[in-house]
Amino acid sequence: MGINLTNFLSSQSKNTKMIDFQDLDHIDGLSISVLSANLYKNDRDDLSMFYFRDGANHASLYTQSKIISENIKWNLNQKTKKVFSLIVNTRNANAFTGKQGYESLKKLADLVSKNLTEKQKQDEEIPKKINPKEILFGCTGTIGEEFPFEKISHQIPNLINKIRYTQNKFIWMKAALGIMTTDTKPKIAMEECKIGSEKVKIYGIAKGSGMIHPNMATTLAYIFTDASLSNDILSKLLKKNIFNTFNAISCDGDTSTNDMVSIFATNKINNSQVKNINENKIKNFDRALNNVLLNLAKRVVSDGEGASKFISINVSKCKNELDAKKIAFSIANSPLVKTAIAGEDPNWGRIIMAIGKAGPKINLKKLCIKLGNLKIAQEGKLYQNYSEEVASKYMKKENIEISVEVYTGTKDFTAYTMDLTKKYIDINADYRS
Amino acid sequence: MGINLTNFLSSQSKNTKMIDFQDLDHIDGLSISVLSANLYKNDRDDLSMFYFRDGANHASLYTQSKIISENIKWNLNQKTKKVFSLIVNTRNANAFTGKQGYESLKKLADLVSKNLTEKQKQDEEIPKKINPKEILFGCTGTIGEEFPFEKISHQIPNLINKIRYTQNKFIWMKAALGIMTTDTKPKIAMEECKIGSEKVKIYGIAKGSGMIHPNMATTLAYIFTDASLSNDILSKLLKKNIFNTFNAISCDGDTSTNDMVSIFATNKINNSQVKNINENKIKNFDRALNNVLLNLAKRVVSDGEGASKFISINVSKCKNELDAKKIAFSIANSPLVKTAIAGEDPNWGRIIMAIGKAGPKINLKKLCIKLGNLKIAQEGKLYQNYSEEVASKYMKKENIEISVEVYTGTKDFTAYTMDLTKKYIDINADYRS
Repeated sequence: MGINLTNFLSSQSKNTKMIDFQDLDHIDGLSISVLSANLYKNDRDDLSMFYFRDGANHASLYTQSKIISENIKWNLNQKTKKVFSLIVNTRNANAFTGKQGYESLKKLADLVSKNLTEKQKQDEEIPKKINPKEILFGCTGTIGEEFPFEKISHQIPNLINKIRYTQNKFIWMKAALGIMTTDTKPKIAMEECKIGSEKVKIYGIAKGSGMIHPNMATTLAYIFTDASLSNDILSKLLKKNIFNTFNAISCDGDTSTNDMVSIFATNKINNSQVKNINENKIKNFDRALNNVLLNLAKRVVSDGEGASKFISINVSKCKNELDAKKIAFSIANSPLVKTAIAGEDPNWGRIIMAIGKAGPKINLKKLCIKLGNLKIAQEGKLYQNYSEEVASKYMKKENIEISVEVYTGTKDFTAYTMDLTKKYIDINADYRS
Repeated sequence: MGINLTNFLSSQSKNTKMIDFQDLDHIDGLSISVLSANLYKNDRDDLSMFYFRDGANHASLYTQSKIISENIKWNLNQKTKKVFSLIVNTRNANAFTGKQGYESLKKLADLVSKNLTEKQKQDEEIPKKINPKEILFGCTGTIGEEFPFEKISHQIPNLINKIRYTQNKFIWMKAALGIMTTDTKPKIAMEECKIGSEKVKIYGIAKGSGMIHPNMATTLAYIFTDASLSNDILSKLLKKNIFNTFNAISCDGDTSTNDMVSIFATNKINNSQVKNINENKIKNFDRALNNVLLNLAKRVVSDGEGASKFISINVSKCKNELDAKKIAFSIANSPLVKTAIAGEDPNWGRIIMAIGKAGPKINLKKLCIKLGNLKIAQEGKLYQNYSEEVASKYMKKENIEISVEVYTGTKDFTAYTMDLTKKYIDINADYRS
C-alpha cells in the first residue's frame, strides 16, 4: 500500500533546497520526546512532546467544523505569546468528550508546566517559570470516547525524562510515526533557505489518512523552524500558504473535529527582522514553507485510506480562483470519478458530470479536458483524435493528472486527491474493531 | 441485492389509496410500447414509447447541472402546450454528443411525429396532425458516446406498430424494466384518490442507481394521471412535491446531466377544474402525488448501487429548512458515515463529524442524536445509558434511522440514502466494460 511520491513532489525553486531525509538534523531550541502510553494497547508510540526550552513563537490554523475537539477549544483559549510545549496524543480525538475532556487537558497542562519548570531549574542558567497556558495539545483518533487522562498523565514524567536536546533523523522519524493513526507511512518534509544572509531550516511532520478535505480534516501538521519570526508574520505566512496546499487536498470530502496545522519558530537564528510578508528577504522562506506544506499535503493524500493512485486536478482559465476550486473539488470529491480511476477506466463522462454539477458556469463551446497530455475533449466535443486505447493505457499510471480549461477567465486552482477503492471500505467499515 | 421496502414506504393518509401492484391497470389516454433496439447487445428492452393519443398536459423538472444532455436541451426548447409522446432510451445518455446528439433527436422527432400522424389517420375519428415539437425525450446511460441514431430510428416503426391502447400490470412492469440501466429492480408506485367527486389514478415509474443526489441525478421518473389538470397546476404540484421526495435522496452525492422528472395528465377524467394548488379539492391529489414521488424516490435509494441498507436521516429543531437539509445531506453524503453503516458499526463520532462540517450552527449544549429509538447523544454529551452493545445490535437492521435534534429552531428535513459498500466500487470501477 502507498504510492511512490518521488515523481510528483513540487519542483524546487533555485533559492530553496529540499534536503534529503538523510540530512535531517537538529532544530536549535526544539526538543522531542516520544513514547507509548499504551493508548493503542500494542506498545506503539502514541504520545509525543515537542519542547521549546526558550519558548517558541507560533501560529496555528484549526478545523472549520462547527463541532471542535476539546484540545482545539483549549488551544484557542490560550492567547500567550510564547509556546513552551506541544503535546500530541493519538487513538483518542478528545472530541465530544465535554467537561471530562477539557478538564483533563487543564490538569495535563498543569502537570506538564510544573514538571517543565522543574526541568528548567535543573538545566537552565536562567530558569523560566512555565505557565499552563504555554502548553498546546494536538489530539487525533476516535471521537466521543472518554479521554484517557490517567494513561497520559501517568507518562508525563517519563516523557519529560526522555527529552534530549538534539534531534537526528531517527528522532524525526520516531515523532512522525508517533502521531500516526491509520496512516501507513510517516510523513516528513524539510527545506533549507536563507532569510537575508542567514540560513534557516524548515522541518515538518504530518499525519492524515481518513477525513481529509479542504479545511484540513484529521490532518495534524507541525512545522518547526529555527528562524526568528514574530507570531504575526508566522500567522500571515501560514494563512497564505495553506490555501493551495492543505486546503487543496481531499480524500473523501469529510472533515474532522480535530484538524490542526501549526508552525513554531524557535528564534535561534539571528536573521534580520521581518515586518511584512511582502518584504523581499522573506520570499525564499515563503516559497520553502509552501514547498514543505505542499510536500506534506501530497504525502497525506497519497497515503489516503485505501489509495492506489494519486490524482492532481488542475482547473484553469476560470473567472476566479473560487470557481476553479469548486470545479476542482467537485471532480476530486466525486465517488464516480474516483471509482472509475480505481478501475483504470478513462470514463471522462464522469469528469464532465462533475464539472457540470460544480455550480460555476462553463464555456461549453471551448471546454477542454486532458488526461496528462492526452486531449479528451476540445471545444466542448470529444477530441477528434481521442483514442480510448491510449487513454486506457494512461489510466494504468500511478499518478493521474486531469486538466480542465473552462474559458471563462484567467484563474486556476489545483486540487489533489486519491482514488476510491475497496480497501477504503475495508478500512472504514471496521475502523473501531 | 436490494433492500426490502415494505417496512419503510410512506404511511398512507386516509384520503389516498396506495394500490397494489396486482391492481395496476389502464390509464385512459396513455399507450405504452417497449422493445429492444439492441442498444445493450443482449436483447433486453431498452427503448420505450409513451403515447398520448389525445395529447397530454405536462410538466417536467430537469437536472441543475451546468452541463445538460442533448435531450434535455431539446425538451427545454419545445414550448408546446400538449405532448403526444415521450421516447425513452437507455444505454446512451446523449450527453456531450454535441450536434450529432441534438440533430439525431430532431430527426427522430420528425420520424415519430410523421408515423404517429399516420397512426392517427388509421385509428382516430378526428385524426390530429402531430408536430415534432410535441415529442419529448428521456435518455440515460453512458455520457459522451455517439448517440445510436440508426439503431433507434430503425425501430421507430416497430415501436409504433406494437402500441396497444390499454395497459395491465405486465405492461407497466415491462416499461419500468425498459428504462433501467444498472438498476437491479423495476420501480413502480401508484395511488388513487379523488378530485372533487371523481376518482383519479396516479401511476409512476422510475429508474435510478448511480449518481443520485438532491437535484435528481440520473433519475428518470415519469408520473401519469388520467386527471384533468392544466400545465400550470401540474408544474406547481411537481415543484412543490419534489422538495422532500426526489430532492431528498442521495446515493453518492453525484449529479447527472440527464435527470428528468415529468408528470403527464391525459385529461380523461372529467374532474372539476383546479385553478390553484391551495384549493381544497386538490389536497388529496397533492398528497397522493407526494406519496408516489416519495415511494419512487425511496425505491431509487434502496436500489442505489451496491446498497445493503436504507438510511433515513431526520434533522429537526433547526433554524430553517435549508439548514436542516444541509446537515441531513452532510450526513447522507459522508463516505465515512456510509462505510461505518455498511460495516454495521454504530460509529456515532462520524455522525458528529458530519454535523460539524455541514456549516449551520449547532446548539451543542442541547444537541441530541438517536439511532432509531436509541439515544446516543443528549445535551451535547454521550447519553448516560448509551450501550454500545445495544447500538451494535440496532446497526444489523436493514433500515437505519438517524435523528438529529439541533435546537436552533423548529424546522426539519429528512434525507434518504444508502450505505457505501465494496459492491459500489465493483459496479463503478468497471461500469463500461
